Amino acid sequence: MRTYLDWNATAPLLPAVRDALVRALDLPGNPSSVHREGRMVRAEIEAARRDVAALVGAEVAHVIFTSGATEAANLVLSPAFKMGRAALSVGHLYVSAIEHPAIREGGRFDKADVSEIAVTSEGTLDLAALEQALASHDAARGLPMLALMLVNNETGIIQPVEDAARVVHAAGGLLVVDAVQAVGRIAVDVQTLGADFLILSSHKIGGPKGVGALISRGEVMMPKPLIHGGGQEKGHRSGTENTSAIIGFGVAASEALGRLDGEAMRIAGLRAVLEDAMQTVAPDVIIHGKDVSRVCNTTFFTLPGLKSETGQIAFDIEGVALSAGSACSSGKVGESHVLTAMGQDPKLGALRISLGAATQRADIDKAIAAFATIAGRRKRAVQAA
Amino acid sequence: MRTYLDWNATAPLLPAVRDALVRALDLPGNPSSVHREGRMVRAEIEAARRDVAALVGAEVAHVIFTSGATEAANLVLSPAFKMGRAALSVGHLYVSAIEHPAIREGGRFDKADVSEIAVTSEGTLDLAALEQALASHDAARGLPMLALMLVNNETGIIQPVEDAARVVHAAGGLLVVDAVQAVGRIAVDVQTLGADFLILSSHKIGGPKGVGALISRGEVMMPKPLIHGGGQEKGHRSGTENTSAIIGFGVAASEALGRLDGEAMRIAGLRAVLEDAMQTVAPDVIIHGKDVSRVCNTTFFTLPGLKSETGQIAFDIEGVALSAGSACSSGKVGESHVLTAMGQDPKLGALRISLGAATQRADIDKAIAAFATIAGRRKRAVQAA
Repeated sequence: MRTYLDWNATAPLLPAVRDALVRALDLPGNPSSVHREGRMVRAEIEAARRDVAALVGAEVAHVIFTSGATEAANLVLSPAFKMGRAALSVGHLYVSAIEHPAIREGGRFDKADVSEIAVTSEGTLDLAALEQALASHDAARGLPMLALMLVNNETGIIQPVEDAARVVHAAGGLLVVDAVQAVGRIAVDVQTLGADFLILSSHKIGGPKGVGALISRGEVMMPKPLIHGGGQEKGHRSGTENTSAIIGFGVAASEALGRLDGEAMRIAGLRAVLEDAMQTVAPDVIIHGKDVSRVCNTTFFTLPGLKSETGQIAFDIEGVALSAGSACSSGKVGESHVLTAMGQDPKLGALRISLGAATQRADIDKAIAAFATIAGRRKRAVQAA
Repeated sequence: MRTYLDWNATAPLLPAVRDALVRALDLPGNPSSVHREGRMVRAEIEAARRDVAALVGAEVAHVIFTSGATEAANLVLSPAFKMGRAALSVGHLYVSAIEHPAIREGGRFDKADVSEIAVTSEGTLDLAALEQALASHDAARGLPMLALMLVNNETGIIQPVEDAARVVHAAGGLLVVDAVQAVGRIAVDVQTLGADFLILSSHKIGGPKGVGALISRGEVMMPKPLIHGGGQEKGHRSGTENTSAIIGFGVAASEALGRLDGEAMRIAGLRAVLEDAMQTVAPDVIIHGKDVSRVCNTTFFTLPGLKSETGQIAFDIEGVALSAGSACSSGKVGESHVLTAMGQDPKLGALRISLGAATQRADIDKAIAAFATIAGRRKRAVQAA
């Protein structure tokens, strides 16, 4: 029996989502067709749109379904916007130094038009550095845009999005918030955050892969479409809608909203047991971000003397699936740009345990046992050396 | 009991695909993760890649999975290419006048850099017009690119792709072939066709929605990525792979290849019954492209005096789902640009019946009965007027 503790990479389907997907498989029809089959599918897509909007307090009409968070990022990270029918330029993209690669790559901006904003040693955006960067922004080239994640995917650390929104808006800029790792773990409200755009992913909250959303706070300023064609999603995103995945995303969003409070508490409790045991077994373990505000489910740790690759394989052999950070590019275990940005030596290596809806106490016990075995072996190796 | 005859808009899932999808729902893991769960999913994606490659005689390594045919079109219809590490420019995009909107919109080209090539009154590309256009192509701005579908989505008419390939290659250009409506209906081989790129869609061949592919004949010249991020699909298409949809696409491709000959014959037989009966009931019915080479499953017809919208609703009420052409943009029943390009008056109106794997003789009988009712009502209306 395996123990899956890599929920930040992807979450297994929630049972309710699975049921909805199996049912959706038997819906024939293209949602753009006007016959009864088409209209039935269209109605289900619009119901899902309501559920996704509700998850983040957005207007239903402001949800654009995409093939995932990466596409949503490439759609919104664009120098070319429209305000109504008028063209609007975004001159420069500022990204925090700890963004996910889907954001760090800068979407449709030229590399020369993307700058990084530093984070503090505590792993949160350096607001003074942001103010400084925006103070020297060249407004002649267009608006500034900041991309800041709400929750970091490696550390789980919550970012000061509301503060950043004030700074960005004072400079007349736009704020894009990657909320992929936040929804279902903390309350997310597009109005309260002051985000102009939110990016969501279905498969990180127990929905299917292949679907995500770009959500706007208003409807006035919108990026030029990335994918042109039949004009679906009000022209913002062409291509036949991924019907069953959208239906599943809706159910996942509804579940994430409904169970938020109790579930976050339960998972925080499991993580506390895990981290206490880790520190007892190996007092030298470093748990990154333990003293700052983190989401309930993530433990990013360094066990001195254990490399990321070695550690990941060792846990895998012990039957525990965890990760060395972002599972973003094919099989590559690179150094963590997040640790580097926090001023730590990324060569130290770090591993990420992330819990989710199906995680039980038995999984935690198994992870602790694996951790003890691996930490003990390391100790003996260090003594033998 | 409804009769679904709109397979060119979207095909209901094949039973084998449905089984594969249900099984795939229970696979945890992100295919980019190095733990066992990740590696299992990766292996399934690579198996699907082999099945999709085999469907069109391509190298396995030349299949890039996308979120659908529209995204694949937007990826390849790009002025910016790379040849190895060197930049390569495509100066102008030529599209046939009967392409699907996903192609006609021109992807990443400026509207000014896209021209239409006429078709003949028989509904096939006018090769002389193509030669003429390429003769005045401005090579200083970059290579020419032609986008030509293999099978038209409205009429089912097969296009002279091999001839067009010779013309385009003589001019040093690239040929992009939308094979969405061809695979599973006629044999498709990327080498024989001489296509530099093929575009496929899963949901048109009984696979799930939300996945398609861009397939290249070689690997030397590739478009710059449309979606940047974690570097999946060898950097050509970032974003977590739509695992279960890709698995389902693989099964659909394998089924389409395996049953091609017998199935095309069976469906051609059903269509012959349908068209004979239509012509008996209403001798004035016009079946577009009946005398040229068409795929086995499509009947695009005009019943004089019956508008597209009215006809579509009338059939829907009779329990038959068919279409007025492309189901591409939300619910809109526009005039057919395909009929216009063929020199016909699009105001005549036309309807499309398209058959598929689950279509049986009883469906044809029901469509014929509905046709007779609607044609008869029209006759009385004409007499009463």
